[in-house]
Amino acid sequence: MRSIFRRGLLLSGLGLLTLTAQAQTAAATKVNKADSVSLRKIYDEALLRGQSYENLRYLTSQIGGRLSGSPQAEQAVQWGKTTMEKLGLDRVYLQEVMVPHWVRGAKEKAEIKPAKGKGLEMNVCALGGSVGTNGKIKAQVVEVKSWAELAALRDDQVKGKFVLFNRPMNPTFIETGQAYGDAGDQRRNGAIEAAKRGAVGALVRSLTLAHDDFPHTGTMRYDEKVTKIPAAALSTNGADQLSQLLKADPGLTFELEMACETLPEVKSYNVVGEIKGSKYPDEVIVVGGHLDSWDLAQGAHDDGTGCVQSIEALRLLNAAGLKPERTVRAVLFMNEENGVRGGTKYAELAKAAGEKHLAAMESDGGGFTPRGFNIEAPAATVKKVQQWQPLFRPYGSTEFKAGHSGTDIEPLKDQAKALIGYDCDDQRYFDIHHTAADTFDKVNRRELELGGASMASLIYLMSKYGL
Amino acid sequence: MRSIFRRGLLLSGLGLLTLTAQAQTAAATKVNKADSVSLRKIYDEALLRGQSYENLRYLTSQIGGRLSGSPQAEQAVQWGKTTMEKLGLDRVYLQEVMVPHWVRGAKEKAEIKPAKGKGLEMNVCALGGSVGTNGKIKAQVVEVKSWAELAALRDDQVKGKFVLFNRPMNPTFIETGQAYGDAGDQRRNGAIEAAKRGAVGALVRSLTLAHDDFPHTGTMRYDEKVTKIPAAALSTNGADQLSQLLKADPGLTFELEMACETLPEVKSYNVVGEIKGSKYPDEVIVVGGHLDSWDLAQGAHDDGTGCVQSIEALRLLNAAGLKPERTVRAVLFMNEENGVRGGTKYAELAKAAGEKHLAAMESDGGGFTPRGFNIEAPAATVKKVQQWQPLFRPYGSTEFKAGHSGTDIEPLKDQAKALIGYDCDDQRYFDIHHTAADTFDKVNRRELELGGASMASLIYLMSKYGL
Repeated sequence: MRSIFRRGLLLSGLGLLTLTAQAQTAAATKVNKADSVSLRKIYDEALLRGQSYENLRYLTSQIGGRLSGSPQAEQAVQWGKTTMEKLGLDRVYLQEVMVPHWVRGAKEKAEIKPAKGKGLEMNVCALGGSVGTNGKIKAQVVEVKSWAELAALRDDQVKGKFVLFNRPMNPTFIETGQAYGDAGDQRRNGAIEAAKRGAVGALVRSLTLAHDDFPHTGTMRYDEKVTKIPAAALSTNGADQLSQLLKADPGLTFELEMACETLPEVKSYNVVGEIKGSKYPDEVIVVGGHLDSWDLAQGAHDDGTGCVQSIEALRLLNAAGLKPERTVRAVLFMNEENGVRGGTKYAELAKAAGEKHLAAMESDGGGFTPRGFNIEAPAATVKKVQQWQPLFRPYGSTEFKAGHSGTDIEPLKDQAKALIGYDCDDQRYFDIHHTAADTFDKVNRRELELGGASMASLIYLMSKYGL
Repeated sequence: MRSIFRRGLLLSGLGLLTLTAQAQTAAATKVNKADSVSLRKIYDEALLRGQSYENLRYLTSQIGGRLSGSPQAEQAVQWGKTTMEKLGLDRVYLQEVMVPHWVRGAKEKAEIKPAKGKGLEMNVCALGGSVGTNGKIKAQVVEVKSWAELAALRDDQVKGKFVLFNRPMNPTFIETGQAYGDAGDQRRNGAIEAAKRGAVGALVRSLTLAHDDFPHTGTMRYDEKVTKIPAAALSTNGADQLSQLLKADPGLTFELEMACETLPEVKSYNVVGEIKGSKYPDEVIVVGGHLDSWDLAQGAHDDGTGCVQSIEALRLLNAAGLKPERTVRAVLFMNEENGVRGGTKYAELAKAAGEKHLAAMESDGGGFTPRGFNIEAPAATVKKVQQWQPLFRPYGSTEFKAGHSGTDIEPLKDQAKALIGYDCDDQRYFDIHHTAADTFDKVNRRELELGGASMASLIYLMSKYGL
């Protein structure tokens, strides 16, 4: 790209036009010029003096992966508390919660043994919650791409074997989150359905649209009435390779060894920080992300970004001099990945205390360029939130639509007027999601900061106008 | 992120809602259900059987950087021709054009020599078009952050020195292209203004919002009436470091050695491929990117992506069975970076041949997630294009606004009814723009494919309805 001067000029011109257009539209709605100015202050603070990126650097590189029950999860709790205490909020505290404690263990190995010739090592990872193999499991493999294919197999074709669930994610979904939801049943139910047919283990194709060598972990389920068999993820390349080898050599043996296990539950915490509302302190707006993350990497996009953006949202309101009229509370939820105990506990305590929640917002789809917000609320409330969309046009965060909010705030469904999911570009998200590649270097500073600013902006408007 | 099943379900539901909503809106406009179906075909083809990513892999990794006049530029011309010939288009041909031939040369070295102590090597690169240093230039450095600061300096403070132009890009612009345009004057005019004051060289802070060690090249200008002095870019970290050192040791010496030079012009080519219109073959819609790229890396996002997306746009129309009623032409323009000779030549030849151009579209802002289109046309024409926006809602490509189109198609301004710039997320673009980091691995397959599909979709609608 070259003609930057012409371009610069034109675009600056447009910038002004956009603002004017926006101000005009705004006049017709509940918003006004003063709100445009307040949002501009929030974005300027985020882009000029943002702290979320450096906070994320510390959380991901100094603490790293932090699965519930791990020492890193406890370090993260202390980090979250100290980080919010430095902001001079009105109140910072912990909420005790018991969490599951699953550990991957030292060994995680797999090898393909052809009828003749050398073995081939496979890159695998245990799915979260899986039982271990208690030594090595050696068995043949049968591949299926649908539940119907599994049902159509004779018992002797499944009994004593590994079942390879190899249905790829559907790339024609435009939002990758839809493709993820569409393919997730293999990971969730594979071990149960395979065990019902007498299989010794479940091998699941990783939930990603990328073709690479990273196995993706994530939760799986057991049914107490069905034998618990080990479940492991293969990378998409690995699943394709095993599938090819099976065509040539259906009798090949797969060797799996995993030392993962579930230990007794552990005491952990949600971390909460709040700014008291100046006019309506009893009306609460929650903004949060989850503090725990899978153990394979640093939990950068899932969900370090949501945590630092939630903390930043409160900092931005203070730094921009926009004291909220309603109470704004940042919550770093514990145990989203394998239990949602933190989110459940938060809702229980809020109910017990008779707290009135106006809205709850969550950022748990990565820290990429903002697109807008997904609103879970009655139609009239969705409309109310959509009234503010024009204010976000200068910032490109324009998609205000009905949709899923977030796992940690779902338990507040009957207590909050609106549940809101921060929506950002998700094209790259599942390439790294739940893998060793979810690291700090995948996060772009500006994308992260623009997200925090858009979250703070909507929170500011709700704290001023209510819902 | 965990609760994928709930999420998947909800989002699929939403997907349908969106489609319905879109169909309804569409009914009120010039578009209809059949168009929704056609666009879906285009996107499915792109996401299921797209060829742009593998084409880009070859162009960037097998040919690489391809500055005008270089052997790689000529290889790229042959690659473009062969690639389009394989698509079975109605016509593929070359347009001869003479291009400037600037070469970086073997040596590019800089060192800071403090009054006492060891020297410190600096990572620098010559700005495109700069003269060489003809041996080493050793001189002191004076730093300025504005033209006013330069003007305020006494002659003896500038004469015989390097001028360091160190005004940072402004991070508060939301679109990074605006910040780029706003800061570009230093790179463009630094050497002229410094030479007017008797300086021996210009050192320019790289045009990026990132803080790293990559120097960014790009064109600079000379004034025939003013002595031509060498101009080099420092990385943002390098410029900050030099600035710090100058505060402690204003007398430090900067040593610069650059072997760059401008050689005689070379014959090169635009590469053109077209599908003849079934009803109005004489009405032409152009879609293009530029084939040349800076020499420091592979020219992946600038502008390999625009080239492969333009080729893909034609392939998608054919593969989706959407024979265009008007002629659609893909043009790989030569020499956008340092002369725009290809774009100028294309417009000249079109005018001489009396061709009627309906529209020209360019992709030269990177291959990131699509946001929409920037339309350069009379207000009535902009409105006409905006009528189709509802059709793009299911694909998240919704920002149809007036704005700058593209450098290579600007010469068609008086010949085409509309100039259209493909608009994608630009938050990451200037981190790698014109640096050694503009490589294939920075391009995400789906983002690239969604962009090509959105381009093909708008071209299809224009070819069906006209403007």
